[in-house]
Amino acid sequence: MSKIVSLKSDRLKIEVCLTPALLPLHKLENSIAVVIDIFRATSSICYGIENGADAIIPVSKVEECAAYHGTGCLLAAERDGEVVEGFDFGNSPFAYTPEKVAGKTVVLTTTNGTHAIQLSRAAKRIVIGSFLNLSSLTEWLREEHENVILVCAGWKNNFNLEDTIFAGAVVNQLKSDRYVLDDAAIAAEDLYLMAKDDLGKFLSKSSHSERLKKLGIEEDIAFCLRVDETSAIPVLEGDRLVKL
Amino acid sequence: MSKIVSLKSDRLKIEVCLTPALLPLHKLENSIAVVIDIFRATSSICYGIENGADAIIPVSKVEECAAYHGTGCLLAAERDGEVVEGFDFGNSPFAYTPEKVAGKTVVLTTTNGTHAIQLSRAAKRIVIGSFLNLSSLTEWLREEHENVILVCAGWKNNFNLEDTIFAGAVVNQLKSDRYVLDDAAIAAEDLYLMAKDDLGKFLSKSSHSERLKKLGIEEDIAFCLRVDETSAIPVLEGDRLVKL
Repeated sequence: MSKIVSLKSDRLKIEVCLTPALLPLHKLENSIAVVIDIFRATSSICYGIENGADAIIPVSKVEECAAYHGTGCLLAAERDGEVVEGFDFGNSPFAYTPEKVAGKTVVLTTTNGTHAIQLSRAAKRIVIGSFLNLSSLTEWLREEHENVILVCAGWKNNFNLEDTIFAGAVVNQLKSDRYVLDDAAIAAEDLYLMAKDDLGKFLSKSSHSERLKKLGIEEDIAFCLRVDETSAIPVLEGDRLVKL
Repeated sequence: MSKIVSLKSDRLKIEVCLTPALLPLHKLENSIAVVIDIFRATSSICYGIENGADAIIPVSKVEECAAYHGTGCLLAAERDGEVVEGFDFGNSPFAYTPEKVAGKTVVLTTTNGTHAIQLSRAAKRIVIGSFLNLSSLTEWLREEHENVILVCAGWKNNFNLEDTIFAGAVVNQLKSDRYVLDDAAIAAEDLYLMAKDDLGKFLSKSSHSERLKKLGIEEDIAFCLRVDETSAIPVLEGDRLVKL
């Protein structure tokens, strides 16, 4: 009996936190947190770090972002899917090309993604995930041999499909006898398996997709669903996301 | 444009609240709340009301339940899957047969289900759902023509598979052009569609199923997954659940 118990406790956990509102239920301090905001913050962060940005500083509020004015940083602010007036850009991945961000520091605030990063601060380590860096992220997580919490940024603390599907993709690549999954991880993987043959089509029925379509950013959406386009893993060091 | 907006706002909502911790995000006051705790509270409540219990009084705390001692009520208290010492019974459906509950009032406190009922009190109306009364519940919801929030009790505020699958079953039966679904409702329906051909097998991989197996209550689980075994719909009137 004691042997079974000890074997069980040796197994690592893969948990999916379906919205930041559920973070208090998780033991972040013993885990690597992967923050996920597919449309579009974490996709753009992965793309920007891949493209040579020195750092991306995530901040919660528009005013915090504005406070960096005149420091030489690029200022990016998005609310409700649109660039906030007076800022260089928002969170479209096409604003994070090498020409625009190489050698630069970007200060970024978004509706959901940067909020989720701030709320995950108790984690042992915080990294950023998106379909763009899926395989390199999963490979690194496997080598780290730690508990993993996949933190879905959602939409204003509500569950959303696209972040959950991506969490399920990580579960699908990472899972093995070494890990125990929670129910949310099991569900996320199942949803990913239903979605994977045509992510765009599966997500076209989501509420967020409707919202983004109204904003006229279908190209952003298609780009954010490209798998393994990049290999850089953004990691939080102090207050900034840098290349691991 | 105004016509489109007006058409849109005429549509009713089906939302799934994946755990009670997310209830503050929903507008309960304009909706019927269906409380769901498949293993086993809401299954047992449906079975008890079907079997002629006068009423079932859900209370949050064991002490509240104990306070009814000597009133002629049956006292049922469950914590972490087991009957609390000194109580008549817990939340096994087999304690809610006609012989035991007909003409009686039961006072019930459980780990998750009664908690979810209390937190849903702002709703226009609270009813109780389980696979046992799936079709009669859905038929009634359709006739009511109201917004519906399916409240999954979960496990200590965590997401669980079985409550979500049942929510998905209701979405699947109820949805039509009349309703807009949120992302959680879309996901729940997809999971139900994966699970429906063999609910027991699908759920055998869930964390809660492992926990219940350890408690030696496989027969309870199998019973709670029987579809359309009953037709009564328990509804909250004041502080008690009675037959609608």
